[in-house]
Amino acid sequence: MRFTLEDALPVLSRTPAVVSSLLTGLPESWTRGTEGPDTWSPFDVVGHLIHGERTDWIPRTEILLTHGESRTFTPFDRFAQFEASRGKTLHELLDTFAELRAANLVRLQSLGLTPDDLERRGRHPELGPCTLRELLATWVTHDLSHIAQIARVMGRQYTDEVGPWRVYLPMLG
Amino acid sequence: MRFTLEDALPVLSRTPAVVSSLLTGLPESWTRGTEGPDTWSPFDVVGHLIHGERTDWIPRTEILLTHGESRTFTPFDRFAQFEASRGKTLHELLDTFAELRAANLVRLQSLGLTPDDLERRGRHPELGPCTLRELLATWVTHDLSHIAQIARVMGRQYTDEVGPWRVYLPMLG
Repeated sequence: MRFTLEDALPVLSRTPAVVSSLLTGLPESWTRGTEGPDTWSPFDVVGHLIHGERTDWIPRTEILLTHGESRTFTPFDRFAQFEASRGKTLHELLDTFAELRAANLVRLQSLGLTPDDLERRGRHPELGPCTLRELLATWVTHDLSHIAQIARVMGRQYTDEVGPWRVYLPMLG
Repeated sequence: MRFTLEDALPVLSRTPAVVSSLLTGLPESWTRGTEGPDTWSPFDVVGHLIHGERTDWIPRTEILLTHGESRTFTPFDRFAQFEASRGKTLHELLDTFAELRAANLVRLQSLGLTPDDLERRGRHPELGPCTLRELLATWVTHDLSHIAQIARVMGRQYTDEVGPWRVYLPMLG
């Protein structure tokens, strides 16, 4: 499937509702559980998605469009959410994510990107040259990957509870 | 995390909304894409969830409570959705799933299950003896596993589009 803005936007716009419908109002045993030491809870993942809205997808799009390959993207902090989410409720984080995502999609659409723009190039600090198409396709895939992660982390809370069915549930590992 | 009905019910009741928010109104390129031959699209997964509502979780709960280990559960047909979903729209399937799930949760709650009931045993045609606790924990985990699958199948439609970022996205395989 070739990336187009027309296909990508409806997925990007749905993610806050998907994450909210997965998590809103659940007991903390679901939202704060992890897969073990140094792994993330659903709460941590929402904080990570917020940090992406603030520092990754649209800021990098703007760097790419303004500076091309001459300016390397600012490195992304994969651990920023542990400090930034401290003291906040999950409900607050979900609201923040929804607001930032909506604003970022307005910014994206206001750029009036053409198919040619999607082939413009920027520079990732570790991965090197990349196109705007690749950056925006990664935004979509990154969303879906973290939705899958939230569902997996939740499901694994019951790894010891499903008894013999575990062999039918490869997600449990 | 120990299985309790109190924790399980809010997850089971959210699944139709989660799946609808992921899929409603998306182009068929998202909803009908698979991971390759003999793998399932999101459309196929919703049909499978419907078949589970009709023949698996609550029917097996009722067999277990009525007959214990003396009656083996009816085998589950993992491919029933290919015939049953034929000619239907995704929107119809999502509505059917939501209706069946809501009705099944009413049936589950009407059983007035006690903690002792959760230890009652039934017999799976392949896995052998199992408890009601294990069956119901599997229902929850199965939901989450298929939510993760839908997100993964969608994300993999862009495997060739993310360029160098693929190394950061283990979900793409």
